[in-house]
Formats: sequence, C-alpha cells, structure tokens
Amino acid sequence: MNLTKPIQAGYFSGQSVFDLAQRLRAGCLTSVELTEAALDSIERLNPILNAFVCVDAAVALAQASKADELFEQGQDLGPLQGIPVAIKDNIDTFDHVTTYGSAHFAGCKPEHDAVCVQRLREAGAVIVGKTLTHEFAYGPTGDRSLQGAARNPWDATCITGGSSAGSAAAVASGMVPLALGTDTGGSIRIPAALCGVVGFKPSFASVPLEGVFPLASSLDHVGPLANHIEDARLLFEVIAGRRCAASTQARPLRVGWIASGSFGAVDAELDSQVYQAAQQLFGEGLQTVDELALLSAEMKATLQVLQRAEAFNVHAERMQNAPQLFEDEVRERLELSGEVRGWQYIRAQSGQARLKAAIAQIFQRYDLLVSPSVPITATPVDARVVQIGAQDMDVRAALLSHTSAWNLTGLPAISLPVGLVRGMPVGLQVIGAAGEDDRLLTLMGQRFPR
Amino acid sequence: MNLTKPIQAGYFSGQSVFDLAQRLRAGCLTSVELTEAALDSIERLNPILNAFVCVDAAVALAQASKADELFEQGQDLGPLQGIPVAIKDNIDTFDHVTTYGSAHFAGCKPEHDAVCVQRLREAGAVIVGKTLTHEFAYGPTGDRSLQGAARNPWDATCITGGSSAGSAAAVASGMVPLALGTDTGGSIRIPAALCGVVGFKPSFASVPLEGVFPLASSLDHVGPLANHIEDARLLFEVIAGRRCAASTQARPLRVGWIASGSFGAVDAELDSQVYQAAQQLFGEGLQTVDELALLSAEMKATLQVLQRAEAFNVHAERMQNAPQLFEDEVRERLELSGEVRGWQYIRAQSGQARLKAAIAQIFQRYDLLVSPSVPITATPVDARVVQIGAQDMDVRAALLSHTSAWNLTGLPAISLPVGLVRGMPVGLQVIGAAGEDDRLLTLMGQRFPR
Repeated sequence: MNLTKPIQAGYFSGQSVFDLAQRLRAGCLTSVELTEAALDSIERLNPILNAFVCVDAAVALAQASKADELFEQGQDLGPLQGIPVAIKDNIDTFDHVTTYGSAHFAGCKPEHDAVCVQRLREAGAVIVGKTLTHEFAYGPTGDRSLQGAARNPWDATCITGGSSAGSAAAVASGMVPLALGTDTGGSIRIPAALCGVVGFKPSFASVPLEGVFPLASSLDHVGPLANHIEDARLLFEVIAGRRCAASTQARPLRVGWIASGSFGAVDAELDSQVYQAAQQLFGEGLQTVDELALLSAEMKATLQVLQRAEAFNVHAERMQNAPQLFEDEVRERLELSGEVRGWQYIRAQSGQARLKAAIAQIFQRYDLLVSPSVPITATPVDARVVQIGAQDMDVRAALLSHTSAWNLTGLPAISLPVGLVRGMPVGLQVIGAAGEDDRLLTLMGQRFPR
Repeated sequence: MNLTKPIQAGYFSGQSVFDLAQRLRAGCLTSVELTEAALDSIERLNPILNAFVCVDAAVALAQASKADELFEQGQDLGPLQGIPVAIKDNIDTFDHVTTYGSAHFAGCKPEHDAVCVQRLREAGAVIVGKTLTHEFAYGPTGDRSLQGAARNPWDATCITGGSSAGSAAAVASGMVPLALGTDTGGSIRIPAALCGVVGFKPSFASVPLEGVFPLASSLDHVGPLANHIEDARLLFEVIAGRRCAASTQARPLRVGWIASGSFGAVDAELDSQVYQAAQQLFGEGLQTVDELALLSAEMKATLQVLQRAEAFNVHAERMQNAPQLFEDEVRERLELSGEVRGWQYIRAQSGQARLKAAIAQIFQRYDLLVSPSVPITATPVDARVVQIGAQDMDVRAALLSHTSAWNLTGLPAISLPVGLVRGMPVGLQVIGAAGEDDRLLTLMGQRFPR
C-alpha cells in the first residue's frame, strides 16, 4: 500500500510466504536456496541494521536440507516447511545462544525450546537466528540491549521501535519473510508500524508462553511479524497450534475510529494519513468512537502498575545481586517498578477486570476498532524527546500510547503498514473483540491489499 | 470436658441448642422466654464483659414473638427457629448499628443484611445484638476497638482473644447459645480457645462473605461459635446454605499431632494437657508429624504479605483522609501494611498455591491434623509481651501462631475446649483436609463428649 522498498532491502523484501511455499512445492526453488538467500541478506545488511544477534549458518542449512529431503520424499508438514524464520532473542532456542538482550545472560544457551519454537520446528520452518530484543523486552525503543540498538531499514539513524526490534528490522529489510516477536505493551505492533510491516498481537493466552522470558505475566503475548496478513496468519496458526476458522460475515462491518487524541497526542500528518487509509479500507462503515478518551488514562495507569509489579517480581534477585549488569535505563525502570505497593497491585487487578468489561460493552456496537498504531514515526536512535505539534513528549510514552490498552484487555490487535509520512512508515492498528483473532485476520486479509 | 463454669455465667452457659430446640417444639418454653433470658444475662454480665456493643431488646423480642407465632401455626423453619444468636459487629445487619469496631463507622446502620445474616433470619433465629470486634477485625487480642476491650468470662482482667472477642465472651458466659464470628488468621478459633467454647472456621469460600466487612479477601472466613460441636454444625449449615453430609468412615482414623514447636513456642503445661486430650480422643491413631516445622515460617511470611496488602487495599482512603480515627495499634499495623510491595504480593500469591499443594501432600497420609489452638492462655488486657518458658514473646504473634496456616491454606479447622490450665481454658485445634468440613464436624461430633 504505497510503500516503496526500504533503503536496506534483502531477498525477501515484500515477498509472500504463500508464493514461496507454492514455488517450493513446484520444485522451482529449494529451502537451501531460500536459507542461503536469507544468510546472504543478513551478511550484507546486518552490519548496518543490527537485527540479528545470533546466526548459525550451519544449523540453519541443516534444517533447510532436512526440509528439502522431506519435500523429495513427498512429506509435507504445511506451508512453513522450508521457510526461513527469525526468532526474537527473548524466546528460548536450544540450539542458539539466547541472551534476552541482557548482560545477565551473555552467552547462555537454554536447555529447551520454547513451546512456540517447538511448534515451528514441527512445522518444518528453518530457524536462521535470533533477533535483537530491547533488554528483557522492557522498552519500546529497541535501542538498549546487550547488543546495542537495532536500526530502521528505512533510515538507519532511526530506531526500529521495540522491544521486538530485530524481528521487525529483519522482516522489513527482507532478511527473512517471517519472524516471532513478543508484545507486553506494544512490542510487536510498535516496531511493525515503525518499520512498515505487519505485526499481530493475538488474544491473551492464545499462544503458550512457556520458554518465553517473562516481562509481565498478565500482559505478555507472542505473535508474528510478516510482510502480509496471510503470512502472519500462517505463523499464528502454527504457534497457536490450530487452524483459523473461516469467518462468516452477514451484515456490514461496524468499524469504530478511536477519536484522535483519545490516547494522547498524534502527529497531525500521520493521523490524517492513517484515517484516510481506514476510510479506504472500511468506507462508509467507519464511525468515530469517543468513549475511549474517558477510559484511556485509567487503562494506562492500570497497565503500568501490573507491568511494574510483575516485571520486578521477575528480576528482584538480579536487582539485588547484580544491578550493574542491567543497562542503565532498564535498571532505572526496574527501580521504579520495585516501589509499586501490594495494595496498588490488587486494585490494578480488579481495575483490569472492570476495564475489560467496559471495553466489551463498546464492542457490542462495533466489530472492529481502529487507530494509528503509533502516533509518531521512528525517532533517532537514543532520542528520548519528540515534538508532536508544539508539544514535547517522552518518546517511550508516545510509542506505547496507542497499543498498551489492548495488552491490558487482552484483545487481538494487528498493525498494518499504510504508507509513509515524511519518508518513514506508519501503521494502522485494527483491534478485534475478545477471542475474535480469526475473524480479525480473515476480515483484514480480505480487505487489505497485498 | 472437665470445664467447670466460668465465673461470669448466664442462662445459656453450657446449654445445648439441640435440647433447646426440642423443648421449644415440646411447648416447654417459648422463644420470647429464651430471648428474655438472653437479654437478662446480657444486662447482668455485659457491664463486666463488654461482649455486646449493641442490643435492641424490642427488635429481638419482636423476632422472638414471630418465631413463637410460627410454632403455634405449626410452621417449622428448622432447629434455629426461636434461638437467640449474636452477630459479630463486622457483619452487616440492617436493623442494628454496625461499627466494624471503628470510630470510622460510629453510629452507622448498613442498608442490607449480610448474606449469612439473611440466612439466619430465614431460619427463624433471633438476633439479639452485635458483639465486639477488634477494630476492623485487625488484631487477635480483642482489646482494641471503638468500644474498648472485651473481657474474659473466666477472668475479667484478661483478654478474650480476638478478633471475634465479643462473640466468644457472649457464648462462653452463657448470654447466648450461638454466635457468628469471622476468622482471617485465627479470629474465631483464638477467642474460642481462650474462652473455652467451640469455634469453627469452615473451608475458604464455603460461606458467602457479602456484607462481611473485608479484612483480607483471600484469607477471610465466616463461622460459628457455640457450646457444642453439634450446635456449631447447626449454625454452619444455615450460613453455608446446605445440610452437612453424613460421613462414612470405613478405616481407622489417621491423626497427625503436629510436632510441638512446629509453629513456635508453646506453654509446656498447656502443650501436655492438649496432647493428653488428643490422646483421649484419638487413642492409638495419633502419630507425630514433623514436616510442618519445615513449612511454618514460609506459611507465616506468605500469609502476612497477603493479609497486609489486602488489608491496606481496603483502608487506603481512610489512611489518607482520616488516619487519626484508627485506634493507634491498628493504624500502626496498617502503616506497615501499606509498605508491602507489589512484587512481594505476586510471590505470596504463588507461594500460597505452592503451600496448599504441600499441605495436601501431608493430608494424603492423615485424615486430621491436631495441635493446640493457641500456645498460651488468656493474657491480661493490654499486655503485649508474654513469657513462654524462659522466652519473651509478642502476645499477638503467639496468639496467631498456630491458627493462621489454616487460613492461608483454606482448610476447615475447629477449636475445641479441652480443660483448664492454671484456671484458664485451653483449646485443641483439629484441622481437616480440603473441603472436608462435613467429615471434620461429624468425626469430632462423634468423639467429643458434650
């Protein structure tokens, strides 16, 4: 949709996994060829983008050969067989070093695969490497980790967004056609929007979290980043361990545009471009919803309390024994997180339940809600203040402002690339009702041009 | 069991609700006569004991007349019809002032009955008044409340224990044959033990808590205080809204005596007397269990974190706006409670689940566990240090030491009066497996002499 290629573009730039899967089965290409193309693209582009933090060509090529053998024997494990995939480095892989982006785990190799990785292997996917995560996934910029900053394929002086920084850069630059990310406050959708790819956060608990390093257990999600909705759907089906149901839609779609400003300031040009994209997609069905503005402050505050208390719970011993190993900004966030009181956490838990119910009420009148995924385009690496209109905003707060509500409520939400503003990608976020992942993917797959 | 009457003894001292119910039905006495006897006993003894904080003779007598009318019409609502009952003052009653023991609620009258009170009314019971609770039920001594200290019928210079202080004193002194209490760390069993009556904390969530002022929502329980196990059972059946199932016991009972000291120091004479009582009750089946000693410290710490965070959650606004209205000791506890961190609460929640599972393992080998209910006899009102052996102990910690584990684990536990030590009552605590309230009551009803 009006996106030209990013400056840094590899073999898989814009390619469709559907097409690749057909060509593999037609014998037009092999998984080894695809994997070599991925490894070549990584070799060429990764020194600029820092998307991958661990690549093992031998391991990847062995998996690719295995996939090709199965093809030769007529064995078909499904559409991901032989397809190169990248895994965010906060997800365990037994055969790759997994650092969670932190000096605390430099050089560590987990004993087991995460369940979602295991499912990818069973589907015949080729794991080419691990992608950079903001340290412990605790940050939306993607420029603070053991391995430094990931860089945006559209402008390498800018952030990718995070925390699934490397996964977004790897897909956006065409190093791989698919990647796994995680999303606790927007960590899939934010870098997807900033890098111009599709990022899908499924419903809470729809993909098992075993083997994914926790950030905040009541908000954590695993999901796909891809060039196309259909490809995101294929990856989602594998990690969720089930096929998506076909959606039957009798009546016209009721789509609510979340009134601009409900979740905080939005860059005016970006807002207008995303709104136009929504109008093109949904036409007359698009209505403006005002009520979210009344809930947004409470949603943010509630999420923040849950996230802080749960994050500190994960890191309490490390904060006690080796605080110096954390990157400074992450340690500062954790110090604040340790201060959340028990009674505040209890209130946030009941607040979460209450807010879920309030949002469910709104979804009685709408099939989908839409908004910008992120109210700004990618900022320079290390920048922490951004101007929106005349207003100085904290970059991190701005990045998270439009996505985190859907972690709190656990609703499925997808970010779709809808063009460029001042040369940088912007995303449209589409949110589905509780548990309606399949319907969201089907509806958007039908409407959103490849 | 070897208890003579307390110094302060009213009409219902030692009486059985079973007997009274029979005599009401035989026409030997009326509910109005019973209620007048209760009111007379209260008038005579309450100036000494301070058990009741609100009594309304007119309201009580009207209920009694109604019960007598129903008897005359041949209508029988069950064994509690016409029986005088006392309600702890942290349980809502629409027709009595309900203060929760606090200046924050001086003179307040709730709009509705608590669900358990509603059930008592439907069973035809006569509510004679409200009994003193430690302020907001947040204390095991029963000597800190808007209405001062309740006093022990066996020695009015001593505490009743708490927080169901007035309910225990009212039953022990024979003002009423039955009373409702609440128990978050031992608040039914502690005063039952110190006053020489039966106190039963049922399984967590077996009695609805609507209309009971919360102390700590994951630990709160409602239950009966009575002269006899059968009477406690009658009251439990009414507030639980169901009849107890008859227990069938094929094999010999396996009873575990919790090794003395597992939950902290115990007065030696008390320990030996309670152990002898357990031997008399269970004979050869009694074996010593050592494992609890390994879990007790973690159980106490876990309960403390849950209780503190949940208690502060209830009182945060009052602590902000009118801290001076709290009794000093309760305010100090709340100040500490506000400091519990969110991450500690999260850990305590998972700790509770883990400890429940560990205790369930022990109950695979035992039908019942037994211990002293409280390791000391009643201390003087306002005393905060007690000697156990050569050791100085905090009175409140000692009072709670043997009961609170069964709030954390939610198991049914009953305190039975098993004689006097140095002239003051002591209690045997019998703990049942998860959900086995009925079996515990049946087994103990068969074994424990009236």
